[in-house]
Amino acid sequence: MKDPQHRPWRVLESKYLSHEPWFTVRREAVELPNGARIPAWYILEYPDWVNVIARTRDGDFLFIDQYRHALGRTSYEIVAGVCDPQDASPLAAAQRELYEETGYGGGRWEPYMVLSANPTSHNNLTHTFLATDVEPVSTQHLEATEDIRIHLFTFEEVHQLLVENRIVQALMAAPLWRYIAENRA
Amino acid sequence: MKDPQHRPWRVLESKYLSHEPWFTVRREAVELPNGARIPAWYILEYPDWVNVIARTRDGDFLFIDQYRHALGRTSYEIVAGVCDPQDASPLAAAQRELYEETGYGGGRWEPYMVLSANPTSHNNLTHTFLATDVEPVSTQHLEATEDIRIHLFTFEEVHQLLVENRIVQALMAAPLWRYIAENRA
Repeated sequence: MKDPQHRPWRVLESKYLSHEPWFTVRREAVELPNGARIPAWYILEYPDWVNVIARTRDGDFLFIDQYRHALGRTSYEIVAGVCDPQDASPLAAAQRELYEETGYGGGRWEPYMVLSANPTSHNNLTHTFLATDVEPVSTQHLEATEDIRIHLFTFEEVHQLLVENRIVQALMAAPLWRYIAENRA
Repeated sequence: MKDPQHRPWRVLESKYLSHEPWFTVRREAVELPNGARIPAWYILEYPDWVNVIARTRDGDFLFIDQYRHALGRTSYEIVAGVCDPQDASPLAAAQRELYEETGYGGGRWEPYMVLSANPTSHNNLTHTFLATDVEPVSTQHLEATEDIRIHLFTFEEVHQLLVENRIVQALMAAPLWRYIAENRA
């Protein structure tokens, strides 16, 4: 299939409202190809994000749980994080996050998906990796502000969590549902 | 499986930085159960969102395309929108959005998934519906600032778009991958 016709907007004015870590925002006045104007469009700037579907040598899926303050829920998640300036690549960022949050490493890694949390408002992408045959190589390396617990789930348990809408984060549900689609017996 | 232990943070201070449509933000100082403090956490407030996997009487999938300014791409999408105060329910919002963006209506509707764009930063949820046997009942009803084109895709074309990472919006990729997982021959 062809790509849809690209119909970008013209930026009439652009201004940064904030430049904080986790809160870099610009407001733009824009004009559509048809001439219509929108006086205020808000763009949230973030570095790219990463997450990992990791399976151990025994075939278990490596999950964590964590409290997420904006939604106010503590949910099961896959390992995820932010590409730091010192990470050589999204893959390196994903491997670092897996090591820090769970103490697991090694294994075979491949890129799996690239998604946006919301292309309307976010300027960044999230890179999902598949890591197979990871194994414990260390303890967790958490900061004082990270309260992360580790869980090992079977394929059927992961499927059950998805069916019950208990993986609420779309950037994680999408690659996990893809994995179910492509690996179910 | 049990839910993970809920470990909410204590809010020490909360302040609205903005109260605009599409940009309502509060900044909170918080304390974790272990006593660690985070001086600035940013919470983006939105009404709930909806989207729809819609299939026509012929079995085609109803897609649109639209330019998304923050990411700067024009991509294929499923119909999506915001719950307005006058919508009786997320279902009513989804049916209204399908009608406005495509002119399609009727059919059988069922709730399919509930997801968050990012529970770290967003306080809202996105409700996905499955609509089967929808049919054209009108023309599109677009605002001047909406530039939306309609496409009909087969099951295999939707699968192909997903495999090629061309459905970039995670809130759409997740329910579509679930649909592939549950309906592939």
